[in-house]
Amino acid sequence: MNSWVGSANHPETDFPIQNLPYVYFDRSGADGDGGIGVLIGDAVLDLTRCREDGLFASEELGDVAWTLQKGAAVSNLFDLDQETLSAFRRRLVALLRDDCDEPTRKIVERNLISASDVRFDIPCEIGDYTDFYCSIFHATNVGTLFRPDNPLLPNYSWVPIGYHGRASSIVVSGTDVVRPRGQGRPDPEAPPVFGPSRRLDYEMEVGFYVGKGNDLGETIPIGNAEEHIFGLCLVNDWSARDVQGWEYQPLGPFLGKSFATSISPAVVTMEALAPFRVPAFERSEDQPGPLPYLSHDENEESGGIDIKLDVLISSQKMRNEGIGPHLVSRSNLKDLYWTIGQMLTHHASNGCNLQTGDLIATGTVSGKDKSERGCLLEMTFGGKEPIELPSGEERKFLEDFDEVILRGFCKRDGFRRIGFGECRGVVLPAK
Amino acid sequence: MNSWVGSANHPETDFPIQNLPYVYFDRSGADGDGGIGVLIGDAVLDLTRCREDGLFASEELGDVAWTLQKGAAVSNLFDLDQETLSAFRRRLVALLRDDCDEPTRKIVERNLISASDVRFDIPCEIGDYTDFYCSIFHATNVGTLFRPDNPLLPNYSWVPIGYHGRASSIVVSGTDVVRPRGQGRPDPEAPPVFGPSRRLDYEMEVGFYVGKGNDLGETIPIGNAEEHIFGLCLVNDWSARDVQGWEYQPLGPFLGKSFATSISPAVVTMEALAPFRVPAFERSEDQPGPLPYLSHDENEESGGIDIKLDVLISSQKMRNEGIGPHLVSRSNLKDLYWTIGQMLTHHASNGCNLQTGDLIATGTVSGKDKSERGCLLEMTFGGKEPIELPSGEERKFLEDFDEVILRGFCKRDGFRRIGFGECRGVVLPAK
Repeated sequence: MNSWVGSANHPETDFPIQNLPYVYFDRSGADGDGGIGVLIGDAVLDLTRCREDGLFASEELGDVAWTLQKGAAVSNLFDLDQETLSAFRRRLVALLRDDCDEPTRKIVERNLISASDVRFDIPCEIGDYTDFYCSIFHATNVGTLFRPDNPLLPNYSWVPIGYHGRASSIVVSGTDVVRPRGQGRPDPEAPPVFGPSRRLDYEMEVGFYVGKGNDLGETIPIGNAEEHIFGLCLVNDWSARDVQGWEYQPLGPFLGKSFATSISPAVVTMEALAPFRVPAFERSEDQPGPLPYLSHDENEESGGIDIKLDVLISSQKMRNEGIGPHLVSRSNLKDLYWTIGQMLTHHASNGCNLQTGDLIATGTVSGKDKSERGCLLEMTFGGKEPIELPSGEERKFLEDFDEVILRGFCKRDGFRRIGFGECRGVVLPAK
Repeated sequence: MNSWVGSANHPETDFPIQNLPYVYFDRSGADGDGGIGVLIGDAVLDLTRCREDGLFASEELGDVAWTLQKGAAVSNLFDLDQETLSAFRRRLVALLRDDCDEPTRKIVERNLISASDVRFDIPCEIGDYTDFYCSIFHATNVGTLFRPDNPLLPNYSWVPIGYHGRASSIVVSGTDVVRPRGQGRPDPEAPPVFGPSRRLDYEMEVGFYVGKGNDLGETIPIGNAEEHIFGLCLVNDWSARDVQGWEYQPLGPFLGKSFATSISPAVVTMEALAPFRVPAFERSEDQPGPLPYLSHDENEESGGIDIKLDVLISSQKMRNEGIGPHLVSRSNLKDLYWTIGQMLTHHASNGCNLQTGDLIATGTVSGKDKSERGCLLEMTFGGKEPIELPSGEERKFLEDFDEVILRGFCKRDGFRRIGFGECRGVVLPAK
């Protein structure tokens, strides 16, 4: 199926008509004239204006149309029922498909804006942000650094380990990240010092937005988990390893993380990802099966999602010399030990009320191989084995003016590429 | 100074005219007719109606009056400048003082409602909730249980240890708390089990609300910290110790806490607490002084606050037998190792943006003596030394239908008692 929007038919676009992720955008790069849009090829379709033009005036789309007010956050869509959302998706496809009738197409066309002419923002105000730790490869690599004899703690195989993150410092892709100051203790024999972090890192993660929530005291059975997940985005959980290493015991990461978390603006729906579902992580014989409350139905063989996740770095020198971003790692969401459904069900298993628009991230997504390590801490073995950039520079951790670029996409024979766009951020010197 | 509101002059009231804490309340116990009020004796003064009656119609109160819309959250006051807030406080005192003129008093009087006729709610939507761990006595007692040889980790004396909490599950005093289910591993030789928590605990804490916030990437110098603190409340950080003990490594407490956090509805302002300021915790010779970014000015000798903190338990049997709540512990905020100013400055020291209405809690407030231990985990030494209730019952941890009542108040010769009211919650059986 093709679109009359030419750029949506390019084989390498992230946003063919089969994707249609939602974004929050402001026209003319300024605040005040924004709302919900959908990405198609190189363009954004302004859904508020489409509504004003009467394009969603049908009974089955009543609830959707109501949410598409000027300035409305994307989370207004998150808790609509699945039928309405599917009907809306079908309508968007009909409007953008190459067989759309000429008069309708003319109306749609005047509500298309080039993506480069708008400013994206985070899709909604995020009430609570939770970060998991669901890559057993990441946990093992990091654990080896801190506890060489005992890398994986006994709870890891049983509990989807997670922690509450800081919601206020979540920023949209493209926002500069100021190198944080903090306490560290580089010399264990001397007192700790306070200053700019010297071990600044990224973490390649995927986040998912809670659609319908649950009331306080209620839980979400594993069989219904995905009904509560609206869509996914890319997350860079920037980490100051020196601060984190000194502060994290016994209550976990705090200021080592809360200075910034970057997310990609596009919310890729579960419907768009349907062709890329794969079985959940296959556990080895010495890994226990999940407890019953976390056990996917045996008939449901698609708890995982095959999403390729690339990390690229571009240094200032590389940019000055005209060298493009350098691919540092490629990992895959399907290698997570726990599925996103298990994360959600576990999170609500104590009666914690998940709310529409909450963001839940997976933790660093790493794979078995060295090329699949989703952060520098793992990749450089704690700074001991620097990576080399094509400019000849070395990196143990991030330097000022380095740009980190995360990309995510799904590819499968016979299907269009479904992409997440990018999550970018440039490191600025400490203030 | 006395009030013409008789109950405000009772020597044991928490809410004399010298206190005037802010609350969010709904009339007739129902949603929909609420707004900001102030507590005076046994009554609530409806500030929205006072505004409608023209009682705040002066130029210097312009900003305040604007915030007092029907249904407005108390946080609308939090980021007003100190001058305006002080002027507002003076105005409230003038309206409630016993020398208030008769015609004005008549107007005020019709906007007074008995506190027992309204429903209180949390004062505002809390964006982010942070919980510290600032009682060195609590940290030592708990550390002794988990690591007998090494109770206090090396970072404790240097870093105000804290973690991000769950904001969505913060509930107002009086809300029942359902015993959470969760994973625990009572027998380390057997697989973990999922079920109702068997080690449910309370934690006696104090919380403070962020008034003016700071932008992402900016910090808050210690000398300005208290300008960003609007007021304080009581916090019960309910904890499922079995869940927490099994899940907390390496990323800290998660589902062991996120099922409920209760707060008292009244926000006691820093102005009301001014007479009860005391020097910060006096460190022993083997405890290092704070690093410069956390060092209070030497001339500022009042980083602490003398607030007595009582925990009472009432079991169902006690209530059935007409036995009143039993005082389990009395601790004091002044015994915290770190001041609330230090907590705030540390929190923003990495550039994390604190936002108006964020709640920051101290962690369990315990003192040196056994009678000053602010949670059952400490008080019963991990369940090994049960406490006795006046009904003859024993408690290692909380049982179903136990009610936990937190109270806080300041007392000093020559000053009126300034109280926090109560933070109550009844434990309901797991679902």
